[in-house]
Amino acid sequence: MSQAGASSAPGHSLTFSDDLRRIADSVNACLDDLLPLPDGPEQRVVEAMRYSALDGGKRLRPYLSIASADLFDVPRVQALRTGAAVEMVHCYSLIHDDLPAMDNGDLRRGRPTCHKAFDEATAILAGDALLTQAFAVLSADATHPDGDTRVKIIAALADAAGAAGMVGGQMLDLMAEQSDLGEEDVERLQALKTGRLLAAPCRIGGLLGQADADALESLDSYGYCLGAAFQITDDLLDLEATESDLGKATGKDAAAGKATFVSLHGPERARDRAKTLVDQAVAALSRFGDAAEPLRSAAAFTVSRRS
Amino acid sequence: MSQAGASSAPGHSLTFSDDLRRIADSVNACLDDLLPLPDGPEQRVVEAMRYSALDGGKRLRPYLSIASADLFDVPRVQALRTGAAVEMVHCYSLIHDDLPAMDNGDLRRGRPTCHKAFDEATAILAGDALLTQAFAVLSADATHPDGDTRVKIIAALADAAGAAGMVGGQMLDLMAEQSDLGEEDVERLQALKTGRLLAAPCRIGGLLGQADADALESLDSYGYCLGAAFQITDDLLDLEATESDLGKATGKDAAAGKATFVSLHGPERARDRAKTLVDQAVAALSRFGDAAEPLRSAAAFTVSRRS
Repeated sequence: MSQAGASSAPGHSLTFSDDLRRIADSVNACLDDLLPLPDGPEQRVVEAMRYSALDGGKRLRPYLSIASADLFDVPRVQALRTGAAVEMVHCYSLIHDDLPAMDNGDLRRGRPTCHKAFDEATAILAGDALLTQAFAVLSADATHPDGDTRVKIIAALADAAGAAGMVGGQMLDLMAEQSDLGEEDVERLQALKTGRLLAAPCRIGGLLGQADADALESLDSYGYCLGAAFQITDDLLDLEATESDLGKATGKDAAAGKATFVSLHGPERARDRAKTLVDQAVAALSRFGDAAEPLRSAAAFTVSRRS
Repeated sequence: MSQAGASSAPGHSLTFSDDLRRIADSVNACLDDLLPLPDGPEQRVVEAMRYSALDGGKRLRPYLSIASADLFDVPRVQALRTGAAVEMVHCYSLIHDDLPAMDNGDLRRGRPTCHKAFDEATAILAGDALLTQAFAVLSADATHPDGDTRVKIIAALADAAGAAGMVGGQMLDLMAEQSDLGEEDVERLQALKTGRLLAAPCRIGGLLGQADADALESLDSYGYCLGAAFQITDDLLDLEATESDLGKATGKDAAAGKATFVSLHGPERARDRAKTLVDQAVAALSRFGDAAEPLRSAAAFTVSRRS
């Protein structure tokens, strides 16, 4: 969490880093609560789930679910639980992406990846169980008293995470290493791989608050632009940051010959594109007035971050 | 499917095999419908999902959801969709269990396993997406008009499939190869790894039909005993059947030094135990009278099957 504060650049509110850290503490406590260790030797898989889910990530996705839900005065516990569920899906995807058959990563957030700290089989199972636990959490009464609302949230997360969303994006990402994807495929890759799971908590915050269709559409637009800006920034960081900045290996995309917005258009145009996307994300929030300030800060943070 | 007919032993109703095959056809059509191929290069992951999900399995789990739902006159389309969702979870677990880091299987139902037909990365993603798609299917209106009912079904499946259920059982199974599990752990292994995902569709059929707590408990007891009998029979088949009977490698448990009910107590006591469990499963159905005949036949089939 300390990186978020240390990396605050001029014009990038210190308050946002404080907010993010404060919310991350609540999210960590919630995740700790939602991943209890069972008795018996099978607790090894839960140890691996906890190792990866409680590793000090920025918790940007839960922040987005909470900041979106706050627009509609949703009880904090509901927003926290949905944020924790989205974070479980994010963590499962990192565990599986790091596997030797995928990106073969040794380091994640400065620590050995799950399959290095445990073993491959345990890491596969830990990812599977985190994905499953996300839906268990969303299905419980404590997430929202109304079953119809919970089921809409489950549908939104499943859609964002599945073959038409994040997993489809990861498939494209693997194919980008082996074949020349056109610009259109690269844009879809970024929208699916990262964008969908950053947009989902924004929509979910609205669903918790019984937002109308127009408000949900605004949150979708915000989330879509934020997600695209986030992915371009990730690709820029892969090119320009050091391993110790990111807590994981850098320069992987170029080494793998992977097509990204950055490799197709160069870092300058990529930076401009990310800024334009942030402006579009902020513009999509106009209907919410001052109450959307935390979401505006999150959009600015997305491109100014150093990790 | 043809094995199911060919293996019908005396006292094991031919009608059941016909029923199972007929329902499997409907399930296959439903799965085909629920796994449409998208445009774009990411369709590779959906091809892998379809390869594994549409491979001619017996569809025992969907049969159980339909036969349980029939006790309460649930519309067939609802029971079929929940059955297809449970089958997606079953198929995802087979894809991941077959991975080199897990059981390292080359053959499944007489065909190359998913990671052999595609590649490891695609197989990992196909499993992830099948699990996600199961929850997407359950969350949709077409599964049941009432959101509260859908969310209860989602909770039941997530509980059965997660770290406290199937994934926990698979973790125990991997540990059984490396350490001496006691009899209690072996029983829990079997209850979790196979039992929970066979019991879940029985409970889900009851949930679709708004069954009362007593009826749900009867279905749980039936499913629990059926699942335990199924797992013991699986272990017996691993010892006694040939590779061409099963369409996958046999003798794996003994080769891996894995503790099972069969290795702990020998095949005779295992066979007796499986029969006792089937009797207990049948006894749990008494409240449902003649309407439960298909579930009784399924219990008998569980131990008489040859694949």
